Amino acid sequence: MNKIEHLGIAVESLEASIPVYEKLLNTKCYKIEEVASEGVKTAFFAIGDSKIELLEASNPESPIARFLDRKGKGIHHIAYDVTDIEKEMERLVAEGFELISMTPKDGADNKRIAFLHPKSTDGVLVELCQEKS
Amino acid sequence: MNKIEHLGIAVESLEASIPVYEKLLNTKCYKIEEVASEGVKTAFFAIGDSKIELLEASNPESPIARFLDRKGKGIHHIAYDVTDIEKEMERLVAEGFELISMTPKDGADNKRIAFLHPKSTDGVLVELCQEKS
Repeated sequence: MNKIEHLGIAVESLEASIPVYEKLLNTKCYKIEEVASEGVKTAFFAIGDSKIELLEASNPESPIARFLDRKGKGIHHIAYDVTDIEKEMERLVAEGFELISMTPKDGADNKRIAFLHPKSTDGVLVELCQEKS
Repeated sequence: MNKIEHLGIAVESLEASIPVYEKLLNTKCYKIEEVASEGVKTAFFAIGDSKIELLEASNPESPIARFLDRKGKGIHHIAYDVTDIEKEMERLVAEGFELISMTPKDGADNKRIAFLHPKSTDGVLVELCQEKS
């Protein structure tokens, strides 16, 4: 685990929340990207060596729509940057953590990603992400 | 806003959660500190240029105890590092954000801190923190 790569924050509307985060962080949103396979539209802000990723559901069955229904808007996940995602997944499984999928998949912002199940990480959804070379 | 200084995560028991985070982040907890005025015991982990701060309620009336009752364990707040906390508070009020208190107070880990009300920050509790000189 090298650093906090980003924090994912579930919002009801990117259109409404992007101006709030631009004022809060005093920086412009630098990218909007849809990840159709996850049913999500994302907006990114740089902050220090990390990012804030706003997440809007692009369909009512998406994980973000279910999160908003269950918990309301707020912090959805913490993503940690890793150098070798397969090796880090192996290390974490050996330590007793549970992965949501045993195979990394493509995420937003040019990343390969994998999620740990919140029940093994004290209630927090944890994402591993490795920059694609 | 210079960087994500730390993420505050509410847990039921530091004793149970510290070993989980030591395995997850692959680093040792470097400090345990009680902030009696806030009714909280904290444990810190370094990750890149940021920190993870675990929060255990040290009394049943503390804000963390109320958070655990209402929402269960999970991410409690995002803290951003600032260079001049008074100036940043002024900037944010001018931008329409609401502060929980207009005066910075002492926090854990040698910081002066102030909180923004989640209703003005899209449901996320935001802390500003400035390292004490």
